This record gives sequence, C-alpha cells and structure tokens, in this order.
Amino acid sequence: MIAKLQDKQIHSFEWIDVVNPTTQELLEIAEKYSLHTKSVEDCLEPEHLPKYEEIDNVVFVILRVYDENAKPNADNIQGLTRKIAIFCSNDFFVTIHRTHQPFLDEIHKKVSFYKKPINSLQLLTKVIDYSLHTYQPPADKIEDLVDFYEEKIFLKTRLPDLLKTLYMLKRKASVSKKMITLTREIIYKLSEHVKGPYMQDLKDSYVQMDIVYDEIMDSINNLTAIYLSVASQKTNEVMRVLTIFSVFFMPLTFIVGVYGMNFKYMPELEVKNGYYLTWLVMVIVTIVVFLWFKRRKWL
Amino acid sequence: MIAKLQDKQIHSFEWIDVVNPTTQELLEIAEKYSLHTKSVEDCLEPEHLPKYEEIDNVVFVILRVYDENAKPNADNIQGLTRKIAIFCSNDFFVTIHRTHQPFLDEIHKKVSFYKKPINSLQLLTKVIDYSLHTYQPPADKIEDLVDFYEEKIFLKTRLPDLLKTLYMLKRKASVSKKMITLTREIIYKLSEHVKGPYMQDLKDSYVQMDIVYDEIMDSINNLTAIYLSVASQKTNEVMRVLTIFSVFFMPLTFIVGVYGMNFKYMPELEVKNGYYLTWLVMVIVTIVVFLWFKRRKWL
Amino acid sequence: MIAKLQDKQIHSFEWIDVVNPTTQELLEIAEKYSLHTKSVEDCLEPEHLPKYEEIDNVVFVILRVYDENAKPNADNIQGLTRKIAIFCSNDFFVTIHRTHQPFLDEIHKKVSFYKKPINSLQLLTKVIDYSLHTYQPPADKIEDLVDFYEEKIFLKTRLPDLLKTLYMLKRKASVSKKMITLTREIIYKLSEHVKGPYMQDLKDSYVQMDIVYDEIMDSINNLTAIYLSVASQKTNEVMRVLTIFSVFFMPLTFIVGVYGMNFKYMPELEVKNGYYLTWLVMVIVTIVVFLWFKRRKWL
Amino acid sequence: MIAKLQDKQIHSFEWIDVVNPTTQELLEIAEKYSLHTKSVEDCLEPEHLPKYEEIDNVVFVILRVYDENAKPNADNIQGLTRKIAIFCSNDFFVTIHRTHQPFLDEIHKKVSFYKKPINSLQLLTKVIDYSLHTYQPPADKIEDLVDFYEEKIFLKTRLPDLLKTLYMLKRKASVSKKMITLTREIIYKLSEHVKGPYMQDLKDSYVQMDIVYDEIMDSINNLTAIYLSVASQKTNEVMRVLTIFSVFFMPLTFIVGVYGMNFKYMPELEVKNGYYLTWLVMVIVTIVVFLWFKRRKWL
Amino acid sequence: MIAKLQDKQIHSFEWIDVVNPTTQELLEIAEKYSLHTKSVEDCLEPEHLPKYEEIDNVVFVILRVYDENAKPNADNIQGLTRKIAIFCSNDFFVTIHRTHQPFLDEIHKKVSFYKKPINSLQLLTKVIDYSLHTYQPPADKIEDLVDFYEEKIFLKTRLPDLLKTLYMLKRKASVSKKMITLTREIIYKLSEHVKGPYMQDLKDSYVQMDIVYDEIMDSINNLTAIYLSVASQKTNEVMRVLTIFSVFFMPLTFIVGVYGMNFKYMPELEVKNGYYLTWLVMVIVTIVVFLWFKRRKWL
Ligand SMILES: [Mg+2]
Ligand SMILES: [Mg+2]
Ligand SMILES: [Mg+2]
Ligand SMILES: [Mg+2]
Ligand SMILES: [Mg+2]
Ligand SMILES: [Mg+2]
Ligand SMILES: [Mg+2]
Ligand SMILES: [Mg+2]
Ligand SMILES: [Mg+2]
Ligand SMILES: [Mg+2]
Ligand SMILES: [Mg+2]
Ligand SMILES: [Mg+2]
Ligand SMILES: [Mg+2]
Ligand SMILES: [Mg+2]
Ligand SMILES: [Mg+2]
Ligand SMILES: [Mg+2]
Ligand SMILES: [Mg+2]
Ligand SMILES: [Mg+2]
Ligand SMILES: [Mg+2]
Ligand SMILES: [Mg+2]
Ligand SMILES: [Mg+2]
Ligand SMILES: [Mg+2]
Ligand SMILES: [Mg+2]
Ligand SMILES: [Mg+2]
Ligand SMILES: [Mg+2]
Ligand SMILES: [Mg+2]
Ligand SMILES: [Mg+2]
Ligand SMILES: [Mg+2]
Ligand SMILES: [Mg+2]
Ligand SMILES: [Mg+2]
Ligand SMILES: [Mg+2]
Repeated sequence: MIAKLQDKQIHSFEWIDVVNPTTQELLEIAEKYSLHTKSVEDCLEPEHLPKYEEIDNVVFVILRVYDENAKPNADNIQGLTRKIAIFCSNDFFVTIHRTHQPFLDEIHKKVSFYKKPINSLQLLTKVIDYSLHTYQPPADKIEDLVDFYEEKIFLKTRLPDLLKTLYMLKRKASVSKKMITLTREIIYKLSEHVKGPYMQDLKDSYVQMDIVYDEIMDSINNLTAIYLSVASQKTNEVMRVLTIFSVFFMPLTFIVGVYGMNFKYMPELEVKNGYYLTWLVMVIVTIVVFLWFKRRKWL
Repeated sequence: MIAKLQDKQIHSFEWIDVVNPTTQELLEIAEKYSLHTKSVEDCLEPEHLPKYEEIDNVVFVILRVYDENAKPNADNIQGLTRKIAIFCSNDFFVTIHRTHQPFLDEIHKKVSFYKKPINSLQLLTKVIDYSLHTYQPPADKIEDLVDFYEEKIFLKTRLPDLLKTLYMLKRKASVSKKMITLTREIIYKLSEHVKGPYMQDLKDSYVQMDIVYDEIMDSINNLTAIYLSVASQKTNEVMRVLTIFSVFFMPLTFIVGVYGMNFKYMPELEVKNGYYLTWLVMVIVTIVVFLWFKRRKWL
Repeated sequence: MIAKLQDKQIHSFEWIDVVNPTTQELLEIAEKYSLHTKSVEDCLEPEHLPKYEEIDNVVFVILRVYDENAKPNADNIQGLTRKIAIFCSNDFFVTIHRTHQPFLDEIHKKVSFYKKPINSLQLLTKVIDYSLHTYQPPADKIEDLVDFYEEKIFLKTRLPDLLKTLYMLKRKASVSKKMITLTREIIYKLSEHVKGPYMQDLKDSYVQMDIVYDEIMDSINNLTAIYLSVASQKTNEVMRVLTIFSVFFMPLTFIVGVYGMNFKYMPELEVKNGYYLTWLVMVIVTIVVFLWFKRRKWL
Repeated sequence: MIAKLQDKQIHSFEWIDVVNPTTQELLEIAEKYSLHTKSVEDCLEPEHLPKYEEIDNVVFVILRVYDENAKPNADNIQGLTRKIAIFCSNDFFVTIHRTHQPFLDEIHKKVSFYKKPINSLQLLTKVIDYSLHTYQPPADKIEDLVDFYEEKIFLKTRLPDLLKTLYMLKRKASVSKKMITLTREIIYKLSEHVKGPYMQDLKDSYVQMDIVYDEIMDSINNLTAIYLSVASQKTNEVMRVLTIFSVFFMPLTFIVGVYGMNFKYMPELEVKNGYYLTWLVMVIVTIVVFLWFKRRKWL
Repeated sequence: MIAKLQDKQIHSFEWIDVVNPTTQELLEIAEKYSLHTKSVEDCLEPEHLPKYEEIDNVVFVILRVYDENAKPNADNIQGLTRKIAIFCSNDFFVTIHRTHQPFLDEIHKKVSFYKKPINSLQLLTKVIDYSLHTYQPPADKIEDLVDFYEEKIFLKTRLPDLLKTLYMLKRKASVSKKMITLTREIIYKLSEHVKGPYMQDLKDSYVQMDIVYDEIMDSINNLTAIYLSVASQKTNEVMRVLTIFSVFFMPLTFIVGVYGMNFKYMPELEVKNGYYLTWLVMVIVTIVVFLWFKRRKWL
C-alpha cells in the first residue's frame, strides 16, 4: 500500500509511506525516484540490520523498531524487531515497511501542524528519534519484572523457573541493546548533515536508551547472581540442619544400640538404675553437643 | 520562585535562580532571555540526563546532583538525584531546579566576596565542580558501611541479609558512578571555553570522584565475593563435621547391631568377656578412624 | 590446475583460478604476472592468517573460508578453515587455493552476466563478501544446536556430556569469530580503493557476521552458565530430600532403639499400652517435624 | 623546615626542599616564587591525587610516593602513600612534603656530582622516575607473599584466614596500581617538554612498574581462584568419604536390624548356621558394593 | 666474546655479535661506536623489558627471546626469557646477549647468501621476526599439554594436581603473551623506517603469535572451568548416591527397629506371619521409593 503522507506544501519534500509493498510496487517506486538497485535489494531482505548509506545525494537508512506485537517467547532480532527502510533526498522521503507503524502517523500529524518548514533530513532525524523510543516500553516492562522478581527472591519464595525467566529476559534485552548500539553509527553519520535541536534531541534519546538498557543488563546480571547465591545459601542451611540432627542423634543411637546387645554377661543391664543412668548419660551427651554447637555459633 | 542572586555589579552578568517554577514563570524567563524552546522543554522533563549544549552563544547544561533527602530504599536515577538546568551567556546565568539546593547559596556567598570579576562560564565551572562534590557524602557513607560489613564478615558473624544490603549498595553506587561519567563529556566540551585554575579544579574533582566510585564498586564486588566464599567455607566445615561423626559412629552402630541379633546360635554371646571384647574392638576401630583422619589432616 | 575463468572481454581483466598448484605451476604464474617472491612464499604456507598487502600496484590478500567438509571434531584454524590467496591488479585477478571452492564458481557465473564492466578490486570486494558468508551455515548449525540443548536443559533432561559439547561448540565458534575479526582490517584497507555499493554490501556482511557470532558466543556462555546452575539446583534438591528424610527418621530410629535395650528394669516395657504410647509419641514427633519444615518452606 | 638543597652553581636553578611547612612558611615561599594561589591550596590538601599542571611557565606536579612506614593494615590511598608537591620553573625547583623523603636526598647527591648541567625539568623527570620506584619494594614483598601462600596451598596446608590475607593484599596492590596509572598522564604531558634519555628512563620505569603490578593483580586473582578450588575439592573429598561409608554400612546395619526383631516366628533365627550365613550375606554385600565403587572409579 | 659476523662487503654495514661481554669489553664497544651511556646502562640490566629507542641516528632495541633452556618450574620474565640488546645504525649492527643464541647464526647464514644488499634496519626487522618465533615452540608444547589434559578430563580420569598444572601453564603463557605485546610498540616505531616485505613478514609473525597466545590463554581458562565443573558434577553424583541409599534404607531400618523393641505387649510379634508381613511392608516401601525416584528422574 502506497500513501502520500505529505505533499510539497509547507515542507519542501513529499513523504511517501509504503506499507507491505509487492515487488512490483517497490520497483515502480524505485524507478520513479531513481533509487539505487542495491538499496532496493536491501529493502527486500527482512533480516537486514540497521545501517546508514549515502548514494548520489540520497540518504538510505535501515532502522529496526521494537515490534509491540512480538510473540512472548521471541528472543532474536527477527522475532522482536521490525525493519523500516527510508530513502531521503531534498525532494522526497520514502518510508518502506512490512506492517503499519503507528509512530509514523504520529510524526506525520505533528509535522503537519508545524509552521516553520523543515527539510527531509530533519524529518529523518525525528523518525530515528521516535524509532529509538519504541524500545522504551519493553524496557519498562523488563524493569518491572526485575523489581517483581527481586522482591520475590529477597522474601525467599521458591521460584524454580526464575533462572529460565531471567535467561529469557537477558536474551531479549540483549537484542534491544544491540539494535540501539547499531543506531549510534547512523546518528554519527547523520550528524554531519543535521545540526541543532533535532539532532540534540536524537542524541539525548540515544544516551537515554543506551543507559536504560545498560541498567537493565546490569540488573538482570546482578539478580541472577543474587538468585544463585540465595539458592546456595539455602543449601548451606539444609546441610547445617542435617549435620546438627546427625551429630545429636548418632551418639544417642549408638548408646541405645550398645544396650540392645544380647550378651549373656552385661553387668550394666543388671544394675538397678541402669536404664535411668543411661538416660542421664544421653542427656549429658546432648548437652555437651549443644554447648559445642553454641560455641561454634551453629545454633 | 525566582530570585536574583547576583546583579551586574562586581561580575558582568546577572544570576537568576529559579526554584520550582510554574510553567508560566518558566515561559516568561524563556522569553525574557530568548531561551530556545527545545531547551525549555528539556527543563520540564524531570528525568533528563546530564548534558551540554550550545545554541546561539547560550550554553545550556543539565546537571544531576545527589539528593541528600533521597529515600533510604531509592535505587534509581530519579530517586537518588535531582536535576539542575543552567542557561549561561555573557549577560546572564539562569539556574532552574525543583527543590532548594544549599550548595548554590554557598557558591553565591563565595562569589559575592570575590574582588576580581569572573565571567559566567567560570561560574558554571564552579557550579559543576560543587555539583560533583554532592556525590562525596554518599560515597563516604557507603565506604563506612563497607568497612563495617568487612569486619563483620571476617569475624564470621552470621549476617543472613548482607547479600541484599550489598546488592542495594551496588545499585546506588552504580547510579552515582553513571552520573559522574556523564559529567565527563560536559567537562570536555566546557574546557574548550574555560581554561586555567577553575577548570583544573573541576578536572581534579572529576578524577577524584571517578576514582572514589571505582574504589567503591571494587570494594563492594570484592566484599560480595568474600562473603560468598566465607559462606561456602562454612558449608565445607559443616560437611566435614557431618562426615567425621558419621565415619566414627557408623562402624560402631553396625557392631552393636550385630550383637543385637536374636540368632539362637551366636557363640560370641556366650563367651564370658564377649561384652568387654566387643568394647575393645570398638575402641580399636575408633582409634584407627582417628589415626586415619589425623593422617588426612581432617582433625 | 589452472583455469582461466574470465578473459578481458566485458571486464578489463583476466581471472585466473589456480587449484592445488604444484610448486612449479605456482612459480610459472608468479613469473608471468611478476608476483612478489614474499607473497608467493605466503601462498605456500597453508596455515597463514588473513591479511591485506599492497606491493607495486598489486593487492595481495589472504582469506580463510569455512571448510564445509571440516571434520566434526576439528577445533582449530587449520582444521576448520581453508586458505585462499588472491593477487589483484588492473589487468589480472589470480585466485590460488588447495581445494575446489564452489562459491568462486558462483561469483564467476554472476559476474559473466553483468552488463556494466566492473574492475578487479570490485571483484575482490565481492569475493571477500562471499567468503564471509561461508561462515553463515556453521553459525546456523550452532544456533540450532544451542536452541536444541536449551530446551533439553529447561526440561531438566539429564545430559552428562553437554558440558563437553558446549565446550567444543565454543572453540569452533571462537575460531570463526577470530577469522571474521581479522577480515575487518582487510575491509578497512580495501575501502580506501573501493567505494560505493560493493563495499557497502561487504561492510553489511561484516557487521552481520560479527553480530551473529557475538550472539552465538553469548548464547553458549549463557547456556553453559544455566546448565551449571541447573545442575547445582539439582544438588540442592538432592540435599533437601536427604535432610528431610534424615530429620524425620533419626528421632524415630532413636526412640525404637531406646525400647530395644535389654535393661532388666525398664518400667515402660511393662506398661500395658507402652507400645501404643510409643507409636503415639512417634506420630507426634513426626507431626512436629512436619510443621517445622512447613514453616521453613522446605515442604 | 626549608632547606636549599642546590644553588645556581653547576645547574641553572635553585632547589628548595620544604618539609612539613607551617601555613606561614608556605605562604612566604608562595610569595617569593610567585606561586599560584590555587596550586598552594592543592599543596595543603593531604589527600590530593597525582596531577600535572602548567601555569605561566611554572610546572606544578603532585606525586604520591609509597610510604615505607605505612601501617601494616593500611589499605587506602591516604594510608599507603605520601603526597609530594613540586613547583618547577627555569629558575627554581621547589619540593614540598609532610615527611622526610630519603629518595630526594639520594637524587640530590647524584645530581651534585654531575659535570654537565641539567635543567629543572630534567630534574623533575628524575624525581618522578624515583617516585615510581618507591612502589617496587612493596611489590617485591607482595610477590614473595604470593609465592609463599602458593606453596602452602599446593601442599594443602589448612589456612583458614588466607582469604582475608589475599583480600587485603589485593586492596593494597590496587592502590599502588591506581597511583602508577595516574602517573601516566603526568609523563605524557611532561614528555612534550623533556625528550632524550631522562624521559626514556622514566617511560621504562613506568612500563616496568605497570607490568609488575599487572602481574601481581593477576597472581592474587589466580591464587584466590586456586584457593577456593582447592577448598571446594576438599569438600568433594569429604562428601565422597561420607557417601562411601554410608553405602557400605547402611545395608549391613539394615540386615543386622532385621535379625534383631523379636517376632515369635522367624525361621532363620532357628537355623543352625543362621548367624554364619548372615555374616556370609554381609560379606557378599560388602564385596558387591566394593566392586560397584571400583567400577565407578570412586575407590 | 666479540665476533664480527659480517663485514661491509655485500651489505653496507658491519655486524658485531657480543656474547656475555665483560664490563670492560662493553665499554670498549660503546666507545668505538659512540653508543649512548644510558643505553649501555640498559644493556647491563638483565631484567630490562623490550623497548625501542632512537638516539642520534642510532636505533637501540631491547628484545626478550624465549629461553629454550628455561627451568621447568620457571614462571617469570627473568626465568623464561633472555635479553638481547641491539644497536643499529647505517654502518654497524651490534647484538649483545648473555648466552649463545642459535637463531642469530641462522639469520647470519641466510643473510650471507643474499645477492641484493639489505640495510641494517631490514636486518633488525628480520631479527625481531625471528625473536618472535622463539615463542612458537613453547606455545606448541602448551597446546599439546592442553589437548592431553582435555582428553583426560573428558574421560573423567582423576587428576588431583591438574589445577596446579593448569595454573603453572597459565603463568608461563602469560609471560610469553606479555613479551609479545611489548613487541607491538617496537614494530610500530620501526615501521616508520622500514616498509615492504620484511616489515610485512614481521607484522604477520606478530599477528600470528598474538593469536596463538590468545588461543592458549582461552584454552587454559576454558579447560580450568571445565575441570572445575566436572569435579563439581562428580560431587553432585556422589550426593545423589548418598541420598538414594539413605532414602531406601532409612524407612527399612526404622521398621526393623520397631519390631526390635522389647515391649511386653506387642500384638504384631505374636501374629503367625508377622515376620513375613513385615517383609511385605518393607518390599512395598522399597517399591514406592523406587517409583518416586523414577518419576523424579533420579534413577
Ligand atoms: Mg528496585
Ligand atoms: Mg553506555
Ligand atoms: Mg551508558
Ligand atoms: Mg531506569
Ligand atoms: Mg545499575
Ligand atoms: Mg578497610
Ligand atoms: Mg580516573
Ligand atoms: Mg577511573
Ligand atoms: Mg576513598
Ligand atoms: Mg579501578
Ligand atoms: Mg581499591
Ligand atoms: Mg530460542
Ligand atoms: Mg559489529
Ligand atoms: Mg558486534
Ligand atoms: Mg541470529
Ligand atoms: Mg555484541
Ligand atoms: Mg543474545
Ligand atoms: Mg556451587
Ligand atoms: Mg612462583
Ligand atoms: Mg604496560
Ligand atoms: Mg599494563
Ligand atoms: Mg615480577
Ligand atoms: Mg598486562
Ligand atoms: Mg602473570
Ligand atoms: Mg561449591
Ligand atoms: Mg583439541
Ligand atoms: Mg591479533
Ligand atoms: Mg589478538
Ligand atoms: Mg594454534
Ligand atoms: Mg581472543
Ligand atoms: Mg579458541
């Protein structure tokens, strides 16, 4: 579907938005605006990574925006992000993408109300800025999850599958981080042409998103380490309980075993208070063990 | 609240301090000093990260200072730090912030007593310098805590929640470290305009704070590692005790079990000193186990 | 075997493809095209690493492509990759390699159908591009294996040799990663001579492959960490079961041991319901232990 | 105390050595040599980090030398190092420090015997060089300790406090490493003015000290890892012993338990050789367990 | 011992090889060729690290070559490597070293047969190249050892001292890696004077050796991690066996304990098939435990 979002009225260029084009449509556009064959090939490749290119006064940019409809278990670049190809010259601004992207409408609406005309490269700067912000909602969601699991861990709730969850979160965050990092080079090259507040806004957004995902990666790593430590502490605790019980009961069980033997001549068995004396011995043994544990700070 | 801290008397510029402005007040100031719309927008965004910008001879800087009234459990940029926006030109120096910042008063007092006039960029350098120093008290506090817990760990006191505490300290220190790192680029850009002792002081402060937080992060990481190792050593100890007790008592319990059997024909039971001989065997077994442990250096 | 793949017809240079040459053949070619002795020596060294060199208007490049016939247990540069030496001047393009390389035929076929002539450096760019893509199939294979093992781990299937498998995968991926990294310098130097879409394609391929192998290394490292954690969690579980059983049975075994003693005077033994009372005590002990475990969240 | 170490005789500058000056003395010197107020302030700050500054043809350098009288448990910059402030111009060379520094006397003696005059910056280069060498003795001491503990660990001597010792060594080495790293920038800036053998000597010293402390940090980290692994291996060993004993004795104890039951009708008890047959069964069980362990390589 | 390896015949410079010189001999040479005093001092220091220096048209280089006669337990720079000092001008090439270095003879022989004259800097390039190759044999040896131990580990052979061995290998490899890294700066500075194939060969050697030692460090680190994991897996296994045995035998031992009690009134003891019913109960308990383990995949 090809839509003309913007005519050369306020601003000095046309904006053509192409959604899910057939190869035929794409070729027509390529011919109309003399787009380079190589770039059109890149458009057709759904897995292409973000990049910036200049050919004969046309700036060609590929962006990848976060796909808000990504499947919950998606964890790679193709599953989590969507490609947008942009051709940008003095006269035209062509955006090509597979699915409808609400943020482009939003930009279009904003730009329509501008009084001062902007040029197409300034629009490009704005589009990249907005595309970076598509990574904010998933970041917020991951941060909330991290806070949620953090609390659970410190309450020592048993969460047998947390490790898997954190692993999946890490993979997702890692994909977003990579896309943001690849945007840096695009910004760097574009900043040779675009100066002033639009570029400054874009750079602010980049720094913001970069730090947000740095923090997320840090948090997930820290949380994983804490989770494993807490689990390991629980094992320590379990072993302590086992050892304490064993140390208390092994001598007692031995003692009662001794007087369970069937020897003909065992003088203690004949002693009148033998049974009570045995209990006394066992109580003393128990107290000694108890004091020993106390001194070792195990109890 | 808008206060004129400084008139063009000693120094050649006005200093306008704006605390918690209404949008109306902010717009008036923006108009009066011809501030750029985009920058004013950044002023309104409470989460904005530190940055440096130059537009038409006005330097616009956003700083984040440590909030001494931060809540004890705050652990992110918004919870731990406060934004200060500064517009700085030859003629004016405008500081805008949500809450009263004592360190600005302090700078103002100092500057009032200066005999030699300074320019507004030198004042900016001084303000950034002081803003960096707001990160010193929390650093001192964390260092004291680290020393405190260090001692506890080496005394082998049981501290079940230390892991959580160290994790929280790390998150806080990490936020401060990030703000200090973002200051570096501001200093770098400002140093093109400001040379001499003011800039040198600022750079010294930066290096100082950077190293202080490097040390803190190192200390927390080391301490966490030590804590986990000490915990793991305790488990080793627990297991050793369990094993030693088991190895001593299992053969003995077996032996007394043997003579607890009710077979009709068990010659040992009839032997006169059978009972004493059994004790002798058990003593010998105990000694053998003891020597074996000694040789293995387990006792 | 020496084959002339391309005559000076469409394009302005000859392409000579030399497969598994004898030293004699190699020397003849060297003489014919005045190749530098040192470079010819490098050709003869099968272990040579990728590099780029310019001598007297001849560009000499060594590439290493992934060997699709590599032995399954190969894990070093020589076992996993094959060397291709290329001499490239205005007039000739000589490719020298030990075994037949299908991707060179593919390039040759494509180039033959070109209408616009290309120069030899553009062909070189294309060859490097294709050589990078030989690392894609092994990457896909490793990614599939990682996904396969990931699922197994999270289903807690016992995989005693997984550690070895992951270790081997890591070594293989590490070799590919190193070859790709060495290509970066070649691209950097070549990009001084070749601009435009061919170079852009090559750079895209480099970024693509670099990120693919980054992701693979990350995945393997993460998976190894997860595997070890899951194994460690199983031990925790095992210890918990042991401790729970021991804590339940040790007091009970002690109690029945007490009434197995053969003292002459043990009043309890004479009591009519002694046996049933003992069972009652044991049931109470069991319930107390159960509640204690419940409160500790061990059950 | 102010001493004139060197008059303008052989060399063209005075060397004034100021030890533990009163503020009054410091101000007099500052006035006499027109030192900048800011630099004098830095002199008064005992915690100042190393830095290099040039103001009006005066080079101002702060060094920190290792304090050979540091307390054994000191582990931060202030506790382990001493500040030296140096003002250096064509005509004078002023060194200011709190405590007597023997290495300055040594340099002074050496310089007095020189035949060729040197300039003050060359002297500064020499002083920095010597200051770096103050970090060699503590490095040697740490290396000896590391070798000492290494041997202990590999002999499997029990060293319960080694973890603490290694942690303290690491903190100390880390402080020295940081001071050496801060020297790099001083050398870099000074090398614009001083060329030739003096500077080369200084650079050699820097590389030497940098590598020495790199090695120390590596060694301590490796040794800590080894210590923890050895400790963990000991736990493995302990668990193996526990398991072997349990597996041998649990079936035997069960068997003797069976024939300790008091059922009226237990035919085995009446069999003539029942007791001996039971022993036979127990021997067979023991042999089976033994063989099973042998096959598993646990014995 | 001073030997003139090369007269100004084919090549335009003399090559003087000085083996283990007395201080007297060294001073004579220094005077004859006007060598700088500082450089001669460096020659006398046996621990000096590799470096490159130019003084008055004389290039002074210190190399460290791997000492093939190094003691097996040597693990530092002085124990594993030997210093070679080289003075190189248009007219002379002086090599100074403590012990005979066969690779210098080899270079000498090769150079003697050259038809085209080379200059002294080209010879220097060749010497550095050969010196790098002295690190190849120890690398091969370590790689073989790593492969050997890898196989042992995966066969689960018990190797109690492997940790120590790997630790020593790592220290040795680390020393070689550091020497190779220090060569980089020498190459960088020399490459301003020497271009063409000699320099290219040297750079190839550098990249080759750098990657070889990168791989070795990686392999040792990976192998250590694997070794520890395998050891930890064995503990897991041991614990599982202990737990399985305990869970099987603890209920059985309790049951036989119950009927070993001596209460006067225990109805079960009087029941005719009480003994067989008890066996039945025990078999059922065993089957239940077995099924429970099966479901948990512990068997
Ligand atoms: Mg939180
Ligand atoms: Mg960042
Ligand atoms: Mg960041
Ligand atoms: Mg955040
Ligand atoms: Mg953080
Ligand atoms: Mg301390
Ligand atoms: Mg720093
Ligand atoms: Mg730092
Ligand atoms: Mg400190
Ligand atoms: Mg640091
Ligand atoms: Mg430190
Ligand atoms: Mg997956
Ligand atoms: Mg990349
Ligand atoms: Mg990458
Ligand atoms: Mg992929
Ligand atoms: Mg990456
Ligand atoms: Mg990833
Ligand atoms: Mg563990
Ligand atoms: Mg040693
Ligand atoms: Mg170094
Ligand atoms: Mg270093
Ligand atoms: Mg050393
Ligand atoms: Mg190093
Ligand atoms: Mg080392
Ligand atoms: Mg462990
Ligand atoms: Mg191998
Ligand atoms: Mg390399
Ligand atoms: Mg490398
Ligand atoms: Mg190799
Ligand atoms: Mg590497
Ligand atoms: Mg490798």
